[in-house]
Amino acid sequence: MPQRAARAAVIAVGTEITEGRIPNSNAALISRRLLAAGVETVLHVAVPDDLALIERALRDAAAQADVLIVTGGLGPTLDDITREAAARLAGVGLETDPAALERIEKIFAALGRPMRENNRRQAERPAGAESIPNDLGTAPGFRMKLAGADAFFLPGVPHEMEAMLERSVLPALEARFLGGGAVEVRRLNCFGLSESEIDHVLAPLFREGDIELAFNIDDAAVQIYLTCRGAPAREAARARLDEAAARVRSALGASVFSEGPVGLEEALASLLRERRLTIGLAESCTGGLATARLARVPGVSEALRGAVVAYSNEAKIRLLGVPEALIAACGAVSREVALAMAEGARRALAADVGVAITGIAGPTGGTPEKPVGLVHIAVALGETTRERELRFFGERTRVQLLAAMAALEQVRRAILFDSRSAKGGLSPCGDDPSPRARVP
Amino acid sequence: MPQRAARAAVIAVGTEITEGRIPNSNAALISRRLLAAGVETVLHVAVPDDLALIERALRDAAAQADVLIVTGGLGPTLDDITREAAARLAGVGLETDPAALERIEKIFAALGRPMRENNRRQAERPAGAESIPNDLGTAPGFRMKLAGADAFFLPGVPHEMEAMLERSVLPALEARFLGGGAVEVRRLNCFGLSESEIDHVLAPLFREGDIELAFNIDDAAVQIYLTCRGAPAREAARARLDEAAARVRSALGASVFSEGPVGLEEALASLLRERRLTIGLAESCTGGLATARLARVPGVSEALRGAVVAYSNEAKIRLLGVPEALIAACGAVSREVALAMAEGARRALAADVGVAITGIAGPTGGTPEKPVGLVHIAVALGETTRERELRFFGERTRVQLLAAMAALEQVRRAILFDSRSAKGGLSPCGDDPSPRARVP
Repeated sequence: MPQRAARAAVIAVGTEITEGRIPNSNAALISRRLLAAGVETVLHVAVPDDLALIERALRDAAAQADVLIVTGGLGPTLDDITREAAARLAGVGLETDPAALERIEKIFAALGRPMRENNRRQAERPAGAESIPNDLGTAPGFRMKLAGADAFFLPGVPHEMEAMLERSVLPALEARFLGGGAVEVRRLNCFGLSESEIDHVLAPLFREGDIELAFNIDDAAVQIYLTCRGAPAREAARARLDEAAARVRSALGASVFSEGPVGLEEALASLLRERRLTIGLAESCTGGLATARLARVPGVSEALRGAVVAYSNEAKIRLLGVPEALIAACGAVSREVALAMAEGARRALAADVGVAITGIAGPTGGTPEKPVGLVHIAVALGETTRERELRFFGERTRVQLLAAMAALEQVRRAILFDSRSAKGGLSPCGDDPSPRARVP
Repeated sequence: MPQRAARAAVIAVGTEITEGRIPNSNAALISRRLLAAGVETVLHVAVPDDLALIERALRDAAAQADVLIVTGGLGPTLDDITREAAARLAGVGLETDPAALERIEKIFAALGRPMRENNRRQAERPAGAESIPNDLGTAPGFRMKLAGADAFFLPGVPHEMEAMLERSVLPALEARFLGGGAVEVRRLNCFGLSESEIDHVLAPLFREGDIELAFNIDDAAVQIYLTCRGAPAREAARARLDEAAARVRSALGASVFSEGPVGLEEALASLLRERRLTIGLAESCTGGLATARLARVPGVSEALRGAVVAYSNEAKIRLLGVPEALIAACGAVSREVALAMAEGARRALAADVGVAITGIAGPTGGTPEKPVGLVHIAVALGETTRERELRFFGERTRVQLLAAMAALEQVRRAILFDSRSAKGGLSPCGDDPSPRARVP
């Protein structure tokens, strides 16, 4: 049982990565999950599809780490040679996993596609390795001892890799390294405050003690990571993080929308389900992105009635009942049209909540009065329709993403605000339904 | 003068990367620029802010590469120790660059901020190293010989790093390695064929000669990379790639939708604009994703009228005019309802082309007859409304993405097919408007 935390090396195989054609997004995800399981990453490596370079990277990494997580190079094509490199380093040959082969044959039969000889290679593994099932794709992974390290080989396709990491690798690591060193991580997700505003509020709270604070920005939300390294055991670390998370929530109020890997759309979907509310959207400049984000959540069909993407003025008039004269008088990007769109969406989609987004995503279409990045968001709920004007900075797709997420957040705050008002009890923080609320 | 192309290792220093809080986006950018300058990347590495681990990574990389590009760890804080690690490996001490110190002092004076002792550290470099100016930030970089390799140290801040790479590093490398080998890359994008099907068709065409073939999957499209390494000069490499790209297009027909970094949505938007066609969408299981993808394209508002996201049956009936009896008889996920939705979208949004997507994204809602992953896509254009039944494999968000992209592709093929039929001239390949068209 090691006294220090277990150490991992994360190795990506693929010329598409070392030539910079795709980013190595798997490495960051794997390291976050490993850290949450108490395993620290000491090395990220990416190498091209070259037998000697892969073998060398595996050997060098095994000399520094207890655990190797290797992704990529398990596909059906000739340049997928991770299996061969692992077998060569271990001094063994390749063998076929009959269960994996049978599964691949079934998938091809179900899809009605011809199975080629090269697809059979995906059922191979170094002799003596143990297969790791892949429920989402054709290539299974495998695990084996390699130069003294526990090595796990996974496909490079992110969603397949992530599912296998969660279902097979992390449980195996937790079983093996439990009690090695207590590193625990807690993540809270916050919307509507910048990283530096959050740092300004939280840093003084964590100046003393053994909780480290770190931030990451993802989809316009700020992820707050609390890491506890000093505790003697897991339970003690968890208790300290519980207390730390409570301090963060109390300081940031309603800006904190979830803990762990729960996105804003999932937090909103849960809230809608909990309050038994249905929602209908009207989107202009975001082109359906807010609805598509919400539609990612499994089971959201109970709450999501639908949306009208009213990109043209005609669609705003015909499908949402926005008065033509209002558009002529105020412009399609205006507070007034946003309010009418939100009410129109609620009516047209027979929903409890209506939300509207209209703005200028750019790169063209801006004027001095209405510049690129200007967005109006309106939420119709109960007797009230609220509206906010926001300004975002960045290119078209960035403005669209920020506007879509801000709209989902406006709905979340409108529901929270509405029910708090109804109860007459406002909490000291986060009552402002603004996504730019300042913490005092 | 090396006969092979020069080899590079790209090393990122920072615990924020190895813990997965931020992605290592610098590595991909650096490798793309290096390749364009004729230098091949054989290794990406990221290490935490740990003196021994940084030193070891530098030593291991120098043993494999002619050039090291090292980013990060040059800031003013105590965990910025890349300078120390480089000096230790070279067996030298640190010295202050007086010009860099003067520049840092001036920046602080201009900002009216006090300069702290730790800011002085940013003017240090290993003795004997040569400074690399940084016009956009406080920390200069430096270059030195390290274990036989040419090592360049740059800040981790992407825009500072990129400017220094362009202005100082690439010119230095081109001067040093000019004539080492001309490397040119061409990318073609293909939809509707799997990576292994494409490999099966193309591999025999490129078995001889100096063009390498590689694939990457992004957003369900397959990117085909053609790399020419053997040519004596750039112009010759480009001419060989022109010829190779023509061979690929002739083998894969209409499945190739673009060259270079042009996504399917951009290819479709260009086609719509070129043919002066407007489009309206009806989305069920994809929740607006197809429309949102199309809305990412700047200037698409000329063509995109809007969409109805008809998540509920009521919305299909009220907003798209789908007969209630049809839904009752055939089910919301059916060929018949898809056809009615496409025609309803065209009518409701007053567009030239109507496209509809209805399916079962999962994880629940599947039956033996209509399993999760079943999707119907219909396209109404001119006198014809076409429909296709597709089956996708994977989890909810994956099914949604594949279905949305397949719908955009169906529209692209319907437009191409329509105009070819009108002319009476069918090309031998790719006429089937199917996103799974087989190459003969």
